[in-house]
Amino acid sequence: MSEFIFERITIIGLGLIGASMALAIKGNKLAREIIGTDASADVCKRAQALGLVDDVIEDIGVAVAGADLVVLAVPVGVCGAVAAQIAPRLKAGAVLTDVGSVKQAVMADVEPHVPEGVSFIPGHPIAGTEHSGPEAGFATLFSGRWVILTPPENAKQDHVQLLTELWAGMGAEIEVMKADHHDLVLAITSHVPHLIAYNIVGTVAELEADTQSEVIKFSASGFRDFTRIAASDPVMWRDVFLNNKDAVLEMLGRFSEDLTALQRAIRREDGDALYALFSRTREIRRNIIEAGQETDKPDFGREHEPD
Amino acid sequence: MSEFIFERITIIGLGLIGASMALAIKGNKLAREIIGTDASADVCKRAQALGLVDDVIEDIGVAVAGADLVVLAVPVGVCGAVAAQIAPRLKAGAVLTDVGSVKQAVMADVEPHVPEGVSFIPGHPIAGTEHSGPEAGFATLFSGRWVILTPPENAKQDHVQLLTELWAGMGAEIEVMKADHHDLVLAITSHVPHLIAYNIVGTVAELEADTQSEVIKFSASGFRDFTRIAASDPVMWRDVFLNNKDAVLEMLGRFSEDLTALQRAIRREDGDALYALFSRTREIRRNIIEAGQETDKPDFGREHEPD
Repeated sequence: MSEFIFERITIIGLGLIGASMALAIKGNKLAREIIGTDASADVCKRAQALGLVDDVIEDIGVAVAGADLVVLAVPVGVCGAVAAQIAPRLKAGAVLTDVGSVKQAVMADVEPHVPEGVSFIPGHPIAGTEHSGPEAGFATLFSGRWVILTPPENAKQDHVQLLTELWAGMGAEIEVMKADHHDLVLAITSHVPHLIAYNIVGTVAELEADTQSEVIKFSASGFRDFTRIAASDPVMWRDVFLNNKDAVLEMLGRFSEDLTALQRAIRREDGDALYALFSRTREIRRNIIEAGQETDKPDFGREHEPD
Repeated sequence: MSEFIFERITIIGLGLIGASMALAIKGNKLAREIIGTDASADVCKRAQALGLVDDVIEDIGVAVAGADLVVLAVPVGVCGAVAAQIAPRLKAGAVLTDVGSVKQAVMADVEPHVPEGVSFIPGHPIAGTEHSGPEAGFATLFSGRWVILTPPENAKQDHVQLLTELWAGMGAEIEVMKADHHDLVLAITSHVPHLIAYNIVGTVAELEADTQSEVIKFSASGFRDFTRIAASDPVMWRDVFLNNKDAVLEMLGRFSEDLTALQRAIRREDGDALYALFSRTREIRRNIIEAGQETDKPDFGREHEPD
């Protein structure tokens, strides 16, 4: 038995997630060898300079050849095309996984290309920051964070087990669920909040110049939190919304209905309705803190000391 | 000349803002004596036990008698009633101010009660956390934060100057603007973001129980930031929306139009429109960081180390 979970891992896509996985796998000695590749020659060069992986191989076919695990750490919208490209070079017995924020669409795009003898086990680490690119990666990104796996019904259980061990080795907690359920839950916890944040920041971008400059100046009161969310990678998020359209539109519909009701409560000056909602939402916050998903430090522990 | 900016300051309302002002004024020796009062006998007792002020006086009329500065640190909706109550006891030459997030409504409610010889100079410190009550106060809450003053046209300039010095002594930066402009800027930087956060957390509160528990479990991806905003004091926020109705409805209208367009882009799978918006919003974020209103640390510097 090897001391490693996988002998050779190839990570395709060296952005925030791919780079963080490389650092976490290497730092925790979870693989003998880590190969990285990226469609951008510039990213390849920066990843090489940062020493993220043992070897950066620009040719994607060469990069995946002989790998025991191949990770698609690319935007959701290109997973299918990348799978088609690498399929002929995948080793028999290899495991293929991804890290996309949408699971049904990725499964539909990737599965037709997966060769006999290769296991595709989709995954989604619920972790990230608003920064992008190889320089944004860090080894502890997944510590204490959830990773959701959505293996197809016929998945090889020992391969699911290996992938579980790999993520656990990076400090993550693992949950297995069905892809459609994942997409619904993530639509409300992540996709719709991002959409709303993008939307309000977009509304500000359309304001008259003098008002806009004051909005920026006095943003330390709610709005700046939205701008952080709305600073995330635009390609990744475009692909999320195109690929989780149904669940996002469903949840957005509920959100809009509720917002219309709230708007009416303001117009009618119905203070009781406002108070009732604003009290109920505190309860959800308490539950999240109790579930260990958040710190109770005010303002996320932002420094309140003078500079 | 006294070494203090005001001899005696009375703070009405000992919640997060009132308590923080008391601590900041005392810590920076900005007044000889600080009196506190609160409509809640329980809050009075807790403030006394915490040693927030030199003296807690439950009788509001006694509390304000002889004060050189009286601060209304109460929800926006009760400022008028409190002003009516204290008016007969205010000292000639005293300055009256408030800390409300809405300025036009507060001015309309308070000004009719202000006796001859007393200056009402409305103010709004743009600072806070999601926590409420006297225990939530801390002396550095206003350090490096903006305070907006909206003095009426006929305000005594030396009184505006004293109030400016007081806030500067607490570490704040001061800006003077017209009340209607304040209300419009704050509607978009603070009021509408809070409304949206309350709304989406409310949407989750209506989900089926099993989905809701998973939303809480996997909330570390956008949604939890909204829950923090939506954990703020419900009475304060009810009053904000009732009292800044016009500006909030105006900005909410723009937000909803933009959201409808975004919804349509998703439905039509218009990736170019999504990408264009998601790129534009990054620019606003950069401007905010450059304006010194935010940290560039990923995820607000949330700990990424293992627990």
